Amino acid sequence: MSKAIFIRNANEVITIKGGSDAPLTKERMEELHIIKGGSMWLEDGNIQAVGTDEEILADYQNRLDEAEVIDARGKVVAPGFVDPHTHLVFAGSRENEFNMRLEGSSYMEIMNAGGGIHATTRATREADHEQLFTESKRRLDKFLMHGVTTVEAKSGYGLSLEHEMKQLEVAKKLNNSHCIDIVSTFMGAHAVPIDYKENPDQFVDIVINEMIPKVAEAGLAEFNDVFCEHGVFTPDQSKRILEAGLKHGLKPKIHADEIEPYGGAETAAEVGAVSADHLLKASDEGMKMMADKGVIGVLLPGTAFFLMAESANGRKMIDTGVPVALSTDCNPGSSPTVSLPLIMNLGCLKMGMTPAEVITATTINAAHAINRGHEVGSIEVGKKADVVILDVPNYMQLQYHYGVNHTETVIKGGKVVVNGGRLV
Amino acid sequence: MSKAIFIRNANEVITIKGGSDAPLTKERMEELHIIKGGSMWLEDGNIQAVGTDEEILADYQNRLDEAEVIDARGKVVAPGFVDPHTHLVFAGSRENEFNMRLEGSSYMEIMNAGGGIHATTRATREADHEQLFTESKRRLDKFLMHGVTTVEAKSGYGLSLEHEMKQLEVAKKLNNSHCIDIVSTFMGAHAVPIDYKENPDQFVDIVINEMIPKVAEAGLAEFNDVFCEHGVFTPDQSKRILEAGLKHGLKPKIHADEIEPYGGAETAAEVGAVSADHLLKASDEGMKMMADKGVIGVLLPGTAFFLMAESANGRKMIDTGVPVALSTDCNPGSSPTVSLPLIMNLGCLKMGMTPAEVITATTINAAHAINRGHEVGSIEVGKKADVVILDVPNYMQLQYHYGVNHTETVIKGGKVVVNGGRLV
Ligand SMILES: [Zn+2]
Ligand SMILES: [Zn+2]
Repeated sequence: MSKAIFIRNANEVITIKGGSDAPLTKERMEELHIIKGGSMWLEDGNIQAVGTDEEILADYQNRLDEAEVIDARGKVVAPGFVDPHTHLVFAGSRENEFNMRLEGSSYMEIMNAGGGIHATTRATREADHEQLFTESKRRLDKFLMHGVTTVEAKSGYGLSLEHEMKQLEVAKKLNNSHCIDIVSTFMGAHAVPIDYKENPDQFVDIVINEMIPKVAEAGLAEFNDVFCEHGVFTPDQSKRILEAGLKHGLKPKIHADEIEPYGGAETAAEVGAVSADHLLKASDEGMKMMADKGVIGVLLPGTAFFLMAESANGRKMIDTGVPVALSTDCNPGSSPTVSLPLIMNLGCLKMGMTPAEVITATTINAAHAINRGHEVGSIEVGKKADVVILDVPNYMQLQYHYGVNHTETVIKGGKVVVNGGRLV
Repeated sequence: MSKAIFIRNANEVITIKGGSDAPLTKERMEELHIIKGGSMWLEDGNIQAVGTDEEILADYQNRLDEAEVIDARGKVVAPGFVDPHTHLVFAGSRENEFNMRLEGSSYMEIMNAGGGIHATTRATREADHEQLFTESKRRLDKFLMHGVTTVEAKSGYGLSLEHEMKQLEVAKKLNNSHCIDIVSTFMGAHAVPIDYKENPDQFVDIVINEMIPKVAEAGLAEFNDVFCEHGVFTPDQSKRILEAGLKHGLKPKIHADEIEPYGGAETAAEVGAVSADHLLKASDEGMKMMADKGVIGVLLPGTAFFLMAESANGRKMIDTGVPVALSTDCNPGSSPTVSLPLIMNLGCLKMGMTPAEVITATTINAAHAINRGHEVGSIEVGKKADVVILDVPNYMQLQYHYGVNHTETVIKGGKVVVNGGRLV
């Protein structure tokens, strides 16, 4: 049993209370419910109390000597950040493509030439569990130093039952051994393998009849995701795959409308997806349908930044009523970063979101995007004691002092795991 | 006398040799002169030897027990980064303007409404030496953790003799007490003070006849800078100010063509400025004139990023033959960051520079932009032992893993000042 932690006198405690049952939309994305001079008591892995310092002192006066006290004066305390869209488990790196892209090759051109995702698929298939574990653990450590305490992790670089299972098994092992919580998504339909290029429907059948049942039976994933894009999977194929997952208890997610308007947002609404992700080219109609069905829009402005494209229109999506979350999209091709802090900067500077909205989008709304809205994403009594202390005097400065990782302390499940910006 | 340091077996030692006499241009900006498996011996504050590990071992075999050994296997070693354009010394912060800008107010609108630079001028005038020292030292510490070992620092928030001198005195005190080297620039002509709005020429006369002589006499600056922009100082006024500085031994710099094409680049070439900075709207003719005269283009892509504007065309400038440097432009209004690593990312992703060029632009070319090309900016025998160790296996990954500060160790003047990413 770890010691209780008493965090005292933060300039701002950003609680984001009241959103555990459903993601926040419109004006509510700006209601951070900040406590000035805020304190909290963490114990048994959970948040036991949060309020002004006087309130917490009144209740815990007699137990002060049992707790590790953290002075948060001059600082901001926020819920541990949640990254709801990563391709965490993969092998190798692809910095060699960087110069190709600077010289004008598009992401799809590199991919069609056998580079891109196919290069990572080769490397990931060749890697054993241990290599994948080691490389991915290194990324998790860096996520943690950037204030992230929960991440989603997709398979999708195996593209065969054996290698998809391998990725998911590594994710499970990481979840068990690393303090960061990992939520697993099966994404066998991440690309059409080169062998099935002439007959993609055959691969779709394998995903549906072979992979999804085995993955679900092994309990290796909670979500099922598909890359719905011209030249990858059609909206119809995507729908078949997502509905097959639903029959096996896998909740649907979809990579939608990243490169062309392709009906991805609409498909998400039709199948009742938990989230539709990317959405750079989503139609107005698709956004409205998502808003009506409460499909979370997971926006990935780092990917647009790295691919030198226009970002999704986060401002319009929020105004339309879509609950918006933000993510790194961490992957070796289109977004090789763990920096959720920079993603928030991009949310403001490239998508017109406000400094308050980007926090909601990386905490409670991100948690809902991976079905963890009741456990994490806000600072409320009973939730997991996942908390970050940021070295800024107010939350506005997280975006104002852009390009800097302000994470000073990270507490995960009631234990200090990052201190002074470094792993404990 | 501090102990010798023996850095061993770096994956890559980026030497950037051969550029000490003049900044690098065109193809030479890509010649990093990398030593694979590189090592170096640092002693008496200088670089004593650099080469393969075998070479260094052969020379220093008998002295191994005298040195602190740093194992750099798997890592990249580079010259300490140089930031050649900052407004380091100021008081206060202006995150309140962030939402105004997101709602559509322009930088010039906020400034003309008495906000912007005028707000910082008020705060800086009110601050005493100690407050300015404390706030600026905090920024210097953060620069150091981002791998920066030399910064230029401009005055320009005093806008009166007394308060300009105060800023420069604080910069001098910081230079003496902080391990980062500071190169001071007088910038009394940073804005027309509100009192002189109706008669800017009168203020120009004060800068020329009163401020420049006093600042030069006190030895408080090496450079003289002016904000040449429509509504601030005209090219003619700028020229008068810079020529007056030259008479007193202050080398010219100029904030040029940031918001409109205004003849700033041309003025820089005409007066023989060491650098012209910003240059978002510089004319083709102006760029050619700069290339002919060897005026360094100091580009500030963070400012464009933060102001949601188009970046300068770094690619075109390099191809035209302008020696290009990069900088944060660290200041409380248009670029409140210390993250030179992100600036390099932006150099690639927003200005079409290559991963090699952005390194040259933040080392040897940046050093030349502040007249330190003979002392720092490359890893060569006899230069100052200013060295960073970066936690990436090759320099390409600095840009590939974008948005992350990869600085692990910083050595300044032969002493380890950052270790594990934190101040020693
Ligand atoms: Zn993805
Ligand atoms: Zn400036």
